[in-house]
Amino acid sequence: MTTTAKAYAAQTATTPLAPWTFERRDLKPYDVQFDILFCGVCHSDLHQARGEWGGEVFPMVPGHEIVGRVVGVGEKVTKFKVGDLAGTGCLVDSCRTCDNCKKGLEQYCENGGSGTYNSTEQDKVTPTYGGYSSTIVVHEDFTLKISDKLDLAATAPLLCAGITTYSPLRHWKVGAGDKVAVVGLGGLGHMGVKFAAAFGAEVTVLSTSADKEADARKLGAHKFVVTKDADQMKSVRGYFDFILDTVSAPHDLNAYLGLLRTDGVLCVVGVPPDAQPVHHFSVIGGRKSLAGSGIGGLPETQEMLDFCAEHGIVSEIEMIDIKDIEEAYSRMQKGDVRYRFVIDMATL
Amino acid sequence: MTTTAKAYAAQTATTPLAPWTFERRDLKPYDVQFDILFCGVCHSDLHQARGEWGGEVFPMVPGHEIVGRVVGVGEKVTKFKVGDLAGTGCLVDSCRTCDNCKKGLEQYCENGGSGTYNSTEQDKVTPTYGGYSSTIVVHEDFTLKISDKLDLAATAPLLCAGITTYSPLRHWKVGAGDKVAVVGLGGLGHMGVKFAAAFGAEVTVLSTSADKEADARKLGAHKFVVTKDADQMKSVRGYFDFILDTVSAPHDLNAYLGLLRTDGVLCVVGVPPDAQPVHHFSVIGGRKSLAGSGIGGLPETQEMLDFCAEHGIVSEIEMIDIKDIEEAYSRMQKGDVRYRFVIDMATL
Repeated sequence: MTTTAKAYAAQTATTPLAPWTFERRDLKPYDVQFDILFCGVCHSDLHQARGEWGGEVFPMVPGHEIVGRVVGVGEKVTKFKVGDLAGTGCLVDSCRTCDNCKKGLEQYCENGGSGTYNSTEQDKVTPTYGGYSSTIVVHEDFTLKISDKLDLAATAPLLCAGITTYSPLRHWKVGAGDKVAVVGLGGLGHMGVKFAAAFGAEVTVLSTSADKEADARKLGAHKFVVTKDADQMKSVRGYFDFILDTVSAPHDLNAYLGLLRTDGVLCVVGVPPDAQPVHHFSVIGGRKSLAGSGIGGLPETQEMLDFCAEHGIVSEIEMIDIKDIEEAYSRMQKGDVRYRFVIDMATL
Repeated sequence: MTTTAKAYAAQTATTPLAPWTFERRDLKPYDVQFDILFCGVCHSDLHQARGEWGGEVFPMVPGHEIVGRVVGVGEKVTKFKVGDLAGTGCLVDSCRTCDNCKKGLEQYCENGGSGTYNSTEQDKVTPTYGGYSSTIVVHEDFTLKISDKLDLAATAPLLCAGITTYSPLRHWKVGAGDKVAVVGLGGLGHMGVKFAAAFGAEVTVLSTSADKEADARKLGAHKFVVTKDADQMKSVRGYFDFILDTVSAPHDLNAYLGLLRTDGVLCVVGVPPDAQPVHHFSVIGGRKSLAGSGIGGLPETQEMLDFCAEHGIVSEIEMIDIKDIEEAYSRMQKGDVRYRFVIDMATL
C-alpha cells in the first residue's frame, strides 16, 4: 500500500517551489519508511530546481539531508525498528555489484547510483523524490542510523555537507601535524573546519570576507587569511599540506595551488558553473595535485555520523518554515546564511 | 685556472644559435670537470632559447642532457676519477638545506635550485651555461655516474626525458597489474612507455597519430588508441589507473580525466603555453587527481640511470651535428623526430 506524501516541488525550472503530493512506494522486504522531521537545504537543491546542471526531471522534490523517525519496516529489515531515528543522504540505491559499490564507494557507482531526487530508482525509470516531503521509503542499506545524542535538526546537514567534507579529509589522511586550509566558509566549509580541527590538524580559513574571522575561530580555525589581501596570501605560500576548496563560484585555482607544500593536495568539493583554467606549472612545481571528491559511500557516511555523535559535532543551522524555501534560496545565493538552512518539516 | 669552453649560444631570443666561447670555472675541492661527448636536445631548450617562458638570460648556452668523460677532479672528490664517464641533468646545484633538498628532492628546492643553463649558481649572480659546449664543471653531488654498458649517446636523454617520466611512474607506484596510458609519443612519451612496460604495467599509448602504432608497440606498448577517434576513446573510458601526459600543446585534460578509474591520477609533465580549463566534475566524479611532476632529484636520477643500465634501457635517438641545431629545432616543432635529437659534440 503506497503512502501519499505531502511535499514541496518545482514543477518546472522556472516555477517557484510549491505544495504537491505524490505516492511513496509500499514497503518491500528490505525497505525502511521514516517520517521526515528535518531536511537540510543544499546549494545543489537550488541548482537542480532551477535546471542549471542540465538533464533535470520535473516535477522535482529536492532535499538530500534528511532525518526523521521510522514508522514502518519491511519484513526482512534488521537494522531498524519503528520509532528509531533514521537518515538518508544523497543516495537511495546503487547497482551494488560494481567494484566501487563492493568497496563501499557507492557514490562512484560505475552503473549509476540512484540519487535521492532528480534521479531514478535502479530500474532507471521510476523517479526519485527527495526530502522536502513528509515521508520517505528507502532500502535499509541506504538508510543511516542517527544518534539521539545530537540535536536532530543540526544533524540533517551532516548527510551531505558533513560527509562531503569528512570524506576527503579522511581519504587524504589529514591529522595531527598537518597544516590544512579550508577555502570558503559556507555550508560545506564550516563543516570542513570542524572536522579538520577534530582530526588534530592546524586549520586556516581562506575567505574573501574578513568579517568571518571571529566565526571561523569559534568553529575551530587557528588562522584566518583574507584571500583578497595579497600580503596575507603571500605569507602562506607553500604552507599547506592539504587545502579543502568548498567554493562553487569561479575562482583562481592556481593561486591556491601556490599555497601548497611539495606533494600537497588541493581538493575541490564545490562545482563552479564553468571549467577553471589550470597552469601546468602550478602542479609540476612541487609535484602537487588538484583532486576532487564527491560526498561519500554508505559505510563512511555511517562512520562520520558515529564520529559526530562521539565528538558532539553538528552543523550550525538556521531553521526555516517550508513556505519560506524560496526566500532561503535567495539568501543562499547571496551567501547570507550561517551556515545551513534546515527546514522544520512540521511546517509542511 | 679557468678553461675556455667552445659552445653554441643564443645571443638574444631572436637570433639563431651560433658559435661562442666562455670560461668554465677553476675546479673547487668538490668539483668534477668532464668533457662533453653528447648532449640531448630538449623541447625546453627551444622554448628558452626563443625566450618563450619569460625571464630568460642571454647569452644562453642550452642543453641539460649531458654526458662525457671526466678530465679533472677537485682535491676532495671521491665519487669520480679522471677517465670516468659522467653526466649532468637539469640541475647543477641547490640550497642543500631546505626540507626538499634534504629529502633528495632538489628539483623542488625551496630556495631555488641552480638550473644547468639559463639560471645562476647559488650565489644568485654567476650565470650557468649548459651542455651545447665542450666541457663543464659541476659539484660531484650533482654529477651522475654513467654506466659503460649502455650506448653513451642514447644515454644522454635519460638525464631529462628519462628522469621526467621515471620519477612520476615511481612516485605513484606504477607496476604490475596497473593499466597505464602515455599521452603523446615524443621524447618524453617514448621513455614513459619503456619505463611503464619495464615496471610491469599494461601500457597504452594515446596519440593523435595513427601512424605511430607500430613504433609504440616496438617500444613496449600493449595497446594503442587514436585520440581523434571517438569510438576508440569511448572504449577506454574509466579504464586507466594512471595516465602520464607528456604533451606540451594545448589539449583537453577533461577528456583524459574521463579515461581514469576511481582514484586515478593524470600526471602532466609537459607544459602547454597557456592554462588549460578543468571542469570540477572531471575530478569530483571518481575522486580523481590532476597532478604534475618535474624532472627528479639527484638520488632518484642515479637510481634511474642504474635501472636503465641493468635493464638495457636507453632513448631512441637521431644524432646531429651541432651546426644543424636550428634545423633540428624546426623539425622538433613539427614533431618530426623519433624520438630525441642528440648532438655529437665532436662536431663542435
